[in-house]
Amino acid sequence: MSPSSALPVRGLWCALLTPIARDGGVDHARLLAHARALLAQGVDGVAPFGTTGEGQSFSLDERRAGLDALLAGGIPGTRIVAATGCAALPETVALTRHAVAAGCAAALVLPPFFWKDASDDGLFAWYASLIEKAADPRLKVMLYHLPQVSAVPLSVNLVGRLAAAFPGTVVGVKDSEGNWAHTAALLAQVPEIAVLIGHEPHLPRLMRAGGAGTICGVANVLPGLVRALLTPQVAAGDEARIAAFIDIAFRQPLMAGFKSMLADQRNDPGWLAVRPPLVPLTDAQRSTLRAALAASGLGPAAAGAQQ
Amino acid sequence: MSPSSALPVRGLWCALLTPIARDGGVDHARLLAHARALLAQGVDGVAPFGTTGEGQSFSLDERRAGLDALLAGGIPGTRIVAATGCAALPETVALTRHAVAAGCAAALVLPPFFWKDASDDGLFAWYASLIEKAADPRLKVMLYHLPQVSAVPLSVNLVGRLAAAFPGTVVGVKDSEGNWAHTAALLAQVPEIAVLIGHEPHLPRLMRAGGAGTICGVANVLPGLVRALLTPQVAAGDEARIAAFIDIAFRQPLMAGFKSMLADQRNDPGWLAVRPPLVPLTDAQRSTLRAALAASGLGPAAAGAQQ
Repeated sequence: MSPSSALPVRGLWCALLTPIARDGGVDHARLLAHARALLAQGVDGVAPFGTTGEGQSFSLDERRAGLDALLAGGIPGTRIVAATGCAALPETVALTRHAVAAGCAAALVLPPFFWKDASDDGLFAWYASLIEKAADPRLKVMLYHLPQVSAVPLSVNLVGRLAAAFPGTVVGVKDSEGNWAHTAALLAQVPEIAVLIGHEPHLPRLMRAGGAGTICGVANVLPGLVRALLTPQVAAGDEARIAAFIDIAFRQPLMAGFKSMLADQRNDPGWLAVRPPLVPLTDAQRSTLRAALAASGLGPAAAGAQQ
Repeated sequence: MSPSSALPVRGLWCALLTPIARDGGVDHARLLAHARALLAQGVDGVAPFGTTGEGQSFSLDERRAGLDALLAGGIPGTRIVAATGCAALPETVALTRHAVAAGCAAALVLPPFFWKDASDDGLFAWYASLIEKAADPRLKVMLYHLPQVSAVPLSVNLVGRLAAAFPGTVVGVKDSEGNWAHTAALLAQVPEIAVLIGHEPHLPRLMRAGGAGTICGVANVLPGLVRALLTPQVAAGDEARIAAFIDIAFRQPLMAGFKSMLADQRNDPGWLAVRPPLVPLTDAQRSTLRAALAASGLGPAAAGAQQ
């Protein structure tokens, strides 16, 4: 049993896109159908309202109701990581308590992202306060390192301090920086917790080095390809495909692009809407994206072909 | 009547520090006493739960209750600008509606600060949606440009578009970047709205150029000095004093430093606490700060001396 088995989040987890209904609210029916489809395609679990899911654009009530809709629809809490981070601690506590009560596998917690120059001591105190106020021995916290978006890095030293101070509670880190040196330092210096990453091209290296898996956005549209990257013998073609896909995915706004791809895969324009300040792709952007994916063999058919 | 007179926020407004009670909550008694003291010292109004007030570290309920405590204590709504920006639009709408209902002079609204690469179109849609959902003709919005903290600049072009689209509603901008070229561009290109700034050394230039005033943190501890900078004939000594003060204020974490100064002025260590992820100054930092202020003639006595 590896030291990181305390975290029941391993393998392939999808950072769910959030479908928007015509009234601007969360489209629970599409959200549930998407989660079910992904689980049927072999995804180990789902993470609603993370960064890919535009989580910070939704209210506490919307995030709670979305999670409840997944549970009510039969997705087990053990297959859900709830992204519970908010700018303010009291609201992070509220969402985290809700997630624990719902039986979620873990709470994925951004640092308080308004404060850009927070010290390790300040961030330690913030996470310690969260754990104290959540006040539930069932709580499993995954720290969320995403400096290119949150603008608040979590240093390896801070992750180590939190893992040491809260064994069995701080049990994982999602490292979405995409900087292998940082990931390697986490694996080496904090071996007692599970390391999951967000940058899919690093997955073969991560799994060889003893990492736990991924919570990623690409799994919304190419779960089979991401699954292939987690296997012991990764085909060179799959490594080339994910590199090509990531290159294409960052040519337009990321979340709107994922939604455009999913809309094409499902033949369902109901997936296109994003919530401001994000904007949907223009028709021209959608055409360009479609052509680039097709040229790389990553068009709509690829989602099924990779299973 | 100047074009910007639609905004009843001119002159000297203080971005209130937020006192923390022993239980970690907002200390309403100290907050109210501080606001009263500032108004008695000639401050035109107060802005609770802005950046200086660690606003993003407090829950919606705490921010509403803090505002209600000021009103219940007799501070007129017309003397209050409520900082209502949150990461998510629904919560920004909720706080903004509360502020309008409370009769506040204006709502000071950060952009949705989780999203770092939001386009002008996306930010325009976000603010437009806020105004639509707030749905109150009494609403006065001040846009809040603070890129060094929010990491989301508001371009001059965006400010102009919003002012043109929502005349009488988008009536001001708080420009806290401290970049005079940006402030000058706002004054020149969006003359129909009021421009207030956060960087106090620019105040003499701002007032000569037709700006409206300031909402600033320094007013917590040196309101008389900031007032002096707003007068038509600014003494060279006051310009030197504010430059010296700003130099000193940024040598340690800003909010904790302001709280340390106020604790000394009021001889009240109850002002020292900050909420994580901020950390209070160490005793050594406090001594160093005290000595630097004293050496520049800006020690505790200066707060009164400048009146």
